[in-house]
Amino acid sequence: MKRLLGVLGGMGPLATVDFMNKVIGLTQAGRDQDHVPMVVYSVPQVPDRTAAILENAESPLPAMLQGMAVLRQAGAECVAIPCNTAHYWYAELAREGRLPILHIADAACEGLAGRGVGGGNVGLLATSGTLAAGFYQDRLAARGYRCVTPAADDQQKLVMGGIHHVKAGELDAARQVLERAAHRLIQAGAQAIVLACTEIPLVLTPESPPGAAALVDATEALAAACVRWARAPAAAAPKVAAH
Amino acid sequence: MKRLLGVLGGMGPLATVDFMNKVIGLTQAGRDQDHVPMVVYSVPQVPDRTAAILENAESPLPAMLQGMAVLRQAGAECVAIPCNTAHYWYAELAREGRLPILHIADAACEGLAGRGVGGGNVGLLATSGTLAAGFYQDRLAARGYRCVTPAADDQQKLVMGGIHHVKAGELDAARQVLERAAHRLIQAGAQAIVLACTEIPLVLTPESPPGAAALVDATEALAAACVRWARAPAAAAPKVAAH
Repeated sequence: MKRLLGVLGGMGPLATVDFMNKVIGLTQAGRDQDHVPMVVYSVPQVPDRTAAILENAESPLPAMLQGMAVLRQAGAECVAIPCNTAHYWYAELAREGRLPILHIADAACEGLAGRGVGGGNVGLLATSGTLAAGFYQDRLAARGYRCVTPAADDQQKLVMGGIHHVKAGELDAARQVLERAAHRLIQAGAQAIVLACTEIPLVLTPESPPGAAALVDATEALAAACVRWARAPAAAAPKVAAH
Repeated sequence: MKRLLGVLGGMGPLATVDFMNKVIGLTQAGRDQDHVPMVVYSVPQVPDRTAAILENAESPLPAMLQGMAVLRQAGAECVAIPCNTAHYWYAELAREGRLPILHIADAACEGLAGRGVGGGNVGLLATSGTLAAGFYQDRLAARGYRCVTPAADDQQKLVMGGIHHVKAGELDAARQVLERAAHRLIQAGAQAIVLACTEIPLVLTPESPPGAAALVDATEALAAACVRWARAPAAAAPKVAAH
């Protein structure tokens, strides 16, 4: 029996499905039994992550820990969270959930390196909660990248507006404003852009970049990290990290 | 908190993702929290269902019951199985898994009625295991439909060949042979065709019928049944059925 991957999902549900699809697509398989076994907790009734970070609204942590408990009980040996903003609670989730978690921002950094982007200005398309949390900026800076983020007005109207369109299933409207946000980052000097909200790659894809910049899909990067984990011998599993 | 849907999946993994996608698409939602909460056991390391039915090979039942136990422990109140052939073990799964299961063939019958097909000849595109199990033929006959199934040679080469192509990710090759199988059923008098293997709607869709016949996607019909279940008051939940 292969090692079981836990997925703390539902934030949102379409992003979870997109993540699962990418894990399947990145797996070398000729039959069902070759695929990565997963148990997926896709319960969207989690308090809004961005509101909790920015407005001190109800914390999603208890709901997410309930999901971690289900994944651990189910036998998951490692967890992926296809929601960037949720990584604000990464340390608590890994510690209190007592399972190692593959960090989506680390995966995105590996994705940048894989696209040949070794340094320079990297644009971030993310929720306002993720930007305020700062973990992307920290992890990118640690690897020698400089972060470019949207102006406050663009962030609110184009990025958050686009993300809400995706969550409401209005994909064309979402694509329009998110492409505009990506263009503004390129104008501001971004040589690559990380799609650091799992709703965004549902409408912008690395295959259809809106300019010259390389787009790195954090969801796909996380899926690739999971496939590597599933292939690696058990000893290579990540340790439960403190942060 | 809404009632939690359990999904016994992984048979195959792409079909599970397709099913989740259809549940999300059929749900009226303006934000994450409106969506159906699910816990999904997508563990593809289950012995082959068709081989177990036809060749008396290793039974998938213990592996599936392990999945049922995970779903019940996670708090699922009802289960959907996006694998038609697995419904051969429906009675044991519901009884020993101690959870009600929405039957995919009942959902497909409701899908036929919803497409305005009230009787007549209905073609079945399914695994050889599902055809041998007979539960589709029984349930269709009980509602006044006559079943049309492929000739033995077509079943082996076109239907099973196509399904294996899907599982190997060879979608174009799969579409070609499965469209041919659908045409043969129409030539044999089918007025409607049930896509009664979850791999088949990944390449044939009700929107692109290969002839005059209505195609009913059993995966989509099951997703619709789940959305109805999630909307219904708790009293409307199905009972644990004996068969």
